[in-house]
Amino acid sequence: MRDTYHDHLDAVVDDLIQMCRLDARAVAQATAGLVGADLGAVERVIADDESVNALYRGVEMQAYDLLARQQPVAGDLRVLVTSLRIVVDLERAGDYAVHLAKIARRRHPASAVPDEMRDTFLQMGRTAEEIVRKAGDVIATRDLSLAAELEHDDDAMDDLTRGLFTQLLQGGGGDIEAAIDVTLAGRYYERLADHAVAVGRRITYMVTGEHSTPPA
Amino acid sequence: MRDTYHDHLDAVVDDLIQMCRLDARAVAQATAGLVGADLGAVERVIADDESVNALYRGVEMQAYDLLARQQPVAGDLRVLVTSLRIVVDLERAGDYAVHLAKIARRRHPASAVPDEMRDTFLQMGRTAEEIVRKAGDVIATRDLSLAAELEHDDDAMDDLTRGLFTQLLQGGGGDIEAAIDVTLAGRYYERLADHAVAVGRRITYMVTGEHSTPPA
Repeated sequence: MRDTYHDHLDAVVDDLIQMCRLDARAVAQATAGLVGADLGAVERVIADDESVNALYRGVEMQAYDLLARQQPVAGDLRVLVTSLRIVVDLERAGDYAVHLAKIARRRHPASAVPDEMRDTFLQMGRTAEEIVRKAGDVIATRDLSLAAELEHDDDAMDDLTRGLFTQLLQGGGGDIEAAIDVTLAGRYYERLADHAVAVGRRITYMVTGEHSTPPA
Repeated sequence: MRDTYHDHLDAVVDDLIQMCRLDARAVAQATAGLVGADLGAVERVIADDESVNALYRGVEMQAYDLLARQQPVAGDLRVLVTSLRIVVDLERAGDYAVHLAKIARRRHPASAVPDEMRDTFLQMGRTAEEIVRKAGDVIATRDLSLAAELEHDDDAMDDLTRGLFTQLLQGGGGDIEAAIDVTLAGRYYERLADHAVAVGRRITYMVTGEHSTPPA
């Protein structure tokens, strides 16, 4: 009985790690879709989001079930409660990848990304992908120095977004429609990364009990 | 001892309701700041966010503490876990009001809202304020029909945001800087309302155990 219980607990954590993998792949593909007007990539992001949502529902039900039946204490309790909070961030991160993909789809066969912003978008895509993967590593290892790294990685993302807005204001973004798309896309990358950083903060709180800034 | 415990539990829920009140006031003031270039209102939103954040930290610590010490079961357990999820939405809703206020501050003494969009913004502000207040009522009463109303209210907000983007594309938003601000502001109202709707969904899940769509 106790073994089954711990198996279930491990399964919850494994599902969270799997969500990070899916989110990382989704943002990479969404970026390919945006920058390269790659409709196949776009459709995969949108279709794959159902897997993220299924994991969300699974984690939620499993975690509530374990809380209710097993009355876990101390460490296990914190893991479960933290999982119920992290799963929201990871589901939401997946939604942002879908939002990015949908911008690409709306503008296809044109690219939503003006030529002079391609490099910035590619960098934002890589940065977001790496942050989300690292969040998965933090969940797997509970390595707090890795969680702290996420904050720096997020600064890099914020710099990229700021640069994007500067480019836009300098007239690099073309017409109003392009400006709306670039503004929203920049915001989506930023928020996607924020949710990965929030995962790091929640794991830190779970391990140390020390309160950081509000995580999202 | 049990009484103290239930007092603490009630205090957690009261703090969530108070956060809704503060969020509703913040979005009303942020709208006044945006539409009327009212710097006093803007500064109050930014200053008052510290109260929201303090409530966030208080709820989080209190809820974890009750979970760890009291090992609540069944209904109480669900209330605490749900509170730990709702508090994130309410803290985040407050952040969106601050984001709105900061747009107004950046553009002051000019208004960030083009004249022809004033009415839409006033309506978005009122709609957001009402949704957040209603979320507070859902927390207080656990009235699921009220929670369901939030979904309709949110549709109205989405319609308003869509209308805003249409206006922008028709050239109503002025230059690129205005287009960026209006795009972001529209998005912030939309997300603020989404978080209030999420509160309704989480309360519904807490009461029924039935899984809806991912809430955020």
